[in-house]
Amino acid sequence: MEKLTALILAAGQGTRMKSKYPKVLHPLLGEPMLRYVTDAARAAGAERIAVVIGFEGERVQAAMGPELEYIWQREQLGTGHAVLMAREFLAKATGELLVLYGDTPLIKPETLCELIELQRATGAAGAILTTRMQDPAGYGRIIRNTGNEISGIVEHKDASSGERIIDEVNTGIYCFTIAALREALAELTPQNAQGEYYLTDVFAAFIGNGLKVAGLLTGDAEAVMGPNDRAQLARTEAFLREAINQRWMAEGVSIPDPATAYIGPHVRIGRDTTVFPGTFIFGKTVIGSDCVIGPQSRIVDSTIGDNTEVQYSQVFQAELGPQNNIGPYSFVRQGTVTAARVKIGGFVEVKNVRIAEESKVPHLSYMGDAEVGRDVNIGAGTITCNYDGVSKHRTIIEDEVFIGSNTNLVAPVTVRAGATVAAGSTITKEVPAKALGIARARQENLTEWVSPKDRAGK
Amino acid sequence: MEKLTALILAAGQGTRMKSKYPKVLHPLLGEPMLRYVTDAARAAGAERIAVVIGFEGERVQAAMGPELEYIWQREQLGTGHAVLMAREFLAKATGELLVLYGDTPLIKPETLCELIELQRATGAAGAILTTRMQDPAGYGRIIRNTGNEISGIVEHKDASSGERIIDEVNTGIYCFTIAALREALAELTPQNAQGEYYLTDVFAAFIGNGLKVAGLLTGDAEAVMGPNDRAQLARTEAFLREAINQRWMAEGVSIPDPATAYIGPHVRIGRDTTVFPGTFIFGKTVIGSDCVIGPQSRIVDSTIGDNTEVQYSQVFQAELGPQNNIGPYSFVRQGTVTAARVKIGGFVEVKNVRIAEESKVPHLSYMGDAEVGRDVNIGAGTITCNYDGVSKHRTIIEDEVFIGSNTNLVAPVTVRAGATVAAGSTITKEVPAKALGIARARQENLTEWVSPKDRAGK
Amino acid sequence: MEKLTALILAAGQGTRMKSKYPKVLHPLLGEPMLRYVTDAARAAGAERIAVVIGFEGERVQAAMGPELEYIWQREQLGTGHAVLMAREFLAKATGELLVLYGDTPLIKPETLCELIELQRATGAAGAILTTRMQDPAGYGRIIRNTGNEISGIVEHKDASSGERIIDEVNTGIYCFTIAALREALAELTPQNAQGEYYLTDVFAAFIGNGLKVAGLLTGDAEAVMGPNDRAQLARTEAFLREAINQRWMAEGVSIPDPATAYIGPHVRIGRDTTVFPGTFIFGKTVIGSDCVIGPQSRIVDSTIGDNTEVQYSQVFQAELGPQNNIGPYSFVRQGTVTAARVKIGGFVEVKNVRIAEESKVPHLSYMGDAEVGRDVNIGAGTITCNYDGVSKHRTIIEDEVFIGSNTNLVAPVTVRAGATVAAGSTITKEVPAKALGIARARQENLTEWVSPKDRAGK
Repeated sequence: MEKLTALILAAGQGTRMKSKYPKVLHPLLGEPMLRYVTDAARAAGAERIAVVIGFEGERVQAAMGPELEYIWQREQLGTGHAVLMAREFLAKATGELLVLYGDTPLIKPETLCELIELQRATGAAGAILTTRMQDPAGYGRIIRNTGNEISGIVEHKDASSGERIIDEVNTGIYCFTIAALREALAELTPQNAQGEYYLTDVFAAFIGNGLKVAGLLTGDAEAVMGPNDRAQLARTEAFLREAINQRWMAEGVSIPDPATAYIGPHVRIGRDTTVFPGTFIFGKTVIGSDCVIGPQSRIVDSTIGDNTEVQYSQVFQAELGPQNNIGPYSFVRQGTVTAARVKIGGFVEVKNVRIAEESKVPHLSYMGDAEVGRDVNIGAGTITCNYDGVSKHRTIIEDEVFIGSNTNLVAPVTVRAGATVAAGSTITKEVPAKALGIARARQENLTEWVSPKDRAGK
Repeated sequence: MEKLTALILAAGQGTRMKSKYPKVLHPLLGEPMLRYVTDAARAAGAERIAVVIGFEGERVQAAMGPELEYIWQREQLGTGHAVLMAREFLAKATGELLVLYGDTPLIKPETLCELIELQRATGAAGAILTTRMQDPAGYGRIIRNTGNEISGIVEHKDASSGERIIDEVNTGIYCFTIAALREALAELTPQNAQGEYYLTDVFAAFIGNGLKVAGLLTGDAEAVMGPNDRAQLARTEAFLREAINQRWMAEGVSIPDPATAYIGPHVRIGRDTTVFPGTFIFGKTVIGSDCVIGPQSRIVDSTIGDNTEVQYSQVFQAELGPQNNIGPYSFVRQGTVTAARVKIGGFVEVKNVRIAEESKVPHLSYMGDAEVGRDVNIGAGTITCNYDGVSKHRTIIEDEVFIGSNTNLVAPVTVRAGATVAAGSTITKEVPAKALGIARARQENLTEWVSPKDRAGK
Repeated sequence: MEKLTALILAAGQGTRMKSKYPKVLHPLLGEPMLRYVTDAARAAGAERIAVVIGFEGERVQAAMGPELEYIWQREQLGTGHAVLMAREFLAKATGELLVLYGDTPLIKPETLCELIELQRATGAAGAILTTRMQDPAGYGRIIRNTGNEISGIVEHKDASSGERIIDEVNTGIYCFTIAALREALAELTPQNAQGEYYLTDVFAAFIGNGLKVAGLLTGDAEAVMGPNDRAQLARTEAFLREAINQRWMAEGVSIPDPATAYIGPHVRIGRDTTVFPGTFIFGKTVIGSDCVIGPQSRIVDSTIGDNTEVQYSQVFQAELGPQNNIGPYSFVRQGTVTAARVKIGGFVEVKNVRIAEESKVPHLSYMGDAEVGRDVNIGAGTITCNYDGVSKHRTIIEDEVFIGSNTNLVAPVTVRAGATVAAGSTITKEVPAKALGIARARQENLTEWVSPKDRAGK
């Protein structure tokens, strides 16, 4: 199989978004719009993917990361100009080049594969993805000869009234033989009032030189149209949401209200898991089977074991074991790793903590930078004082420890196996195994006492 | 009036659900699908209801409870076989038998009543609920004679091309005279390639024996179709949600966004109550009038008094009095009973607690296994230490007590009427009436102290 | 320009709402229905607005406040009677009078402006807003002469069969020349079986006296129809929600799921802010640009600075600075004012607190009635004991203070600049600058201790 390269045009601002951010970074289900296009290119077989950046290009690089190559187009002089900027990149390439747009997140890999296959099968210098439009005004028309072969692309403003009746339009998505493209690019000039370079001129060159141009007509016009404003962005997200949720339901996931389950494109979910309403599952999250996720939870870049429940909670960059019970109202942060049958209950924040089997943090606690052994019970109101105003320190709680309520564990500190900490203690030094650590004043009852209420005469 | 018995077929797996759980247990608005069918049967007058179980039948028994009778069908040999398994059950029965399916949750009691009445009025041995289908392929067709009487049911695969044009189909829902059914069942044999027993053969026997067969054509085809996969399950839930919410709006309940108010079929709600978006009201919950429920709350199997607000909170198996103010972010658990004008505020968990009038738990507290008198104020961060690692103990807080913040009440313990507990105290023994209980070290200010920040030279 | 006065009829109960509250007070996106009408009247130029109240009129006055004038209609004797009650009010008025209904919240100012202009341009005594109805049954029909001028309004029950074919109906919204109206009102009598006064009789009087009557036909029939029951109320809210959200998206605000973003009519939002699902923004809230609001948050009558995030939180009557980070699960209450880069984190309630730049209240705290300086760190579990059972007192925390975890600050109390409070302390008196305030028992480890678990032999 020949090599496939993809070039994604993403230099524009998208002025109708009314945004200071580049259009291709506007997110859909937690991922930048552009990610959907790079995913499709990769799924269609692209080994190298380059993105042509311009407006706020640094942001695009930062968001998309080093897996892609970036080509700067500092001036916006047309699609031909964008591809010209990639000449150095293309100099090293052989095989085919897919040309895509960073703002068409609904493009399907299957469509791209069809386009590539058509180009390869016909030996064309370039293949054009076309579609029919009810209202083609504004789009470049596809001119076909009597043999139904593409003989040209005419821009709307240059089209004759006869040509304007044509409803087959150019989507701007192409597959080129790189060698042929390179030659044609060398002759590309801005022959128009705007001084812009049109990539469609390349096809005129192909045809002029007797090279073949193929055309693939897709019925899926929606997929090649990108959102141009925020209302369309919302509709695009609704479309993706529905498609992703239907796919998971078909796989045996229950989603009682698919309209309010927001599942990103890279998430995986096991069978017999239920995703309740108002729930966001984003990033590279993997959820096991038989889980209860939501209602009204958010899980990002995390792994959730089988039979685990996460209700009314937040989980970020964490790894939760099986049969865990999280929430309601928990905040599980990065670096949290739990074993089986762990409970993180109501109003609990955990961060950078490992918790072994059967241990419980049932209520109102903050556990940060800690190791918690198995069969540990953390009383309500327990706080690891991990920060001294300068650095963070670790707390070690060994197996079978019982921590009383409203306890402070001033890190660095260790509570040894089987120890108990009395409620209301501030623990600043190690509690030995099996011992009772206590730091507490003795209770006195002042019976002669006059309360503020008494004093106020109420 | 004659006796009515219902037999609900619920032995199948529902393979298109892709689930390890039986199809009839998949929930809709917090209730298993099968509950809607047993509810409809009971509303139509069924005094005894038996469920034929097979795939994961123990789960069905466990979920549905002892109010129903269960009949095992260990092999899946057709609908006739399912009813044959009920022969012993039917031996004791007289009157009519409704045959229903556990996976048709939208079936209406009114439709069943019509079917029963038709059967009784016509003196038929059996009455068939039929419906018209735009695409009847796959369904058994209803054959009627020139007098418009049902003369047979033909399975799709056995139907002639003339019969396949018929769009009146068998829903599989029947009402039988039990005596006639018993006789026909005695002769039922698996006369087909699959070796299955078809219940429709009973009607052939009736007709052969000169008994009358009646047919009720319902226009409500949707109601007799059950969901077969999870996408259909979601649509069924949306349909029920809309129907239930419309009913409550007609009764004077405000539901600003009916698409995201999830109200179960057994819930009752008083007039001028508002159910805000993202709210679940499930189980046997009863909500008074003039309440504010939600947004984004969940109330299950609870009673809520008039004029009570529950916002951004969870309430399970609790009984809240009138004019209570719950949330945001409260977790009210089983066994909580409150009187009038109680406040349970932000980040508070209560479990198995009785709270008398006018008392307040405004913030960040855990109250478990406690009695709280009237006019009590519980300071933020108060925790009842109800668990010593082995057993749970009770805390008694009498009337007009003031508990300072970050206090531990180590149960069993009592704070007598009018007493005060100083902030930061751990109370391990009784505080007498009117006294100040205090367990606190005296404050020292170390002015020569070098903070970690100073030491770090920051 | 001439003076414009508006009279809004709002005395009815709206029995189909099944409510003890007046129909016009039922809320839509946090505002009473009537507010939309007074807003439209004001936007159309009305300088004085009077509301005719009757059923539960005191509630209307209380809800709508002193910016409006109120006229009592204690008996419900028709629209003419309602306007008659306003005779004293009108005695002082000149120019034009808009007559509107308190239960038509979708009425547009542009439509009212057109009506006013028509009336002024034609010199009519009164102008009628009309619309076409597919099913006009029940509505008063507009009779036009051959010159297409309005020659009468006929009530449905008085209409001939020829007149009943007319589909142009009276919306009941009028613009009058006040002088002409006053004269016509003087002659208004209840000439009908019900003994009611019909305002439409005024037009008969105009026409009889040779005065001109103008008619404005609006195509927007929906806008002049008010909701009559709670299902229609929900649909009206959905319509408003969609319209408001579309407007903000067009202005450069991202709303990924517009169906579950609930934004009130008086809210303002800056560009590149995202409003995530399940979020309520109500009242006179102003949100800056580049903010992240939601998911599942509620912000009421607050100001939010640029680049601030509010996630899974409640904000009421607060003023948050730029680059703040609020939530998840924070409860920010009235009188909270923050400077730049303040963090209010998980499970934190703040009320009547000023917080200076860079200060953090990261977890599980209650701060009430306090001043917090800059660069302050508030440890988890810190509580300001602001209430002694009788009155509230203030806590002052100066710049660069570090408060340890599970600390009580018993107000009134001051912690001076640069001081530290040790974890687990109850601070009852001032901590000097740079000092360490500590109130804590020394830790003991009892190694001979027998835990309840040991005792239970477990």
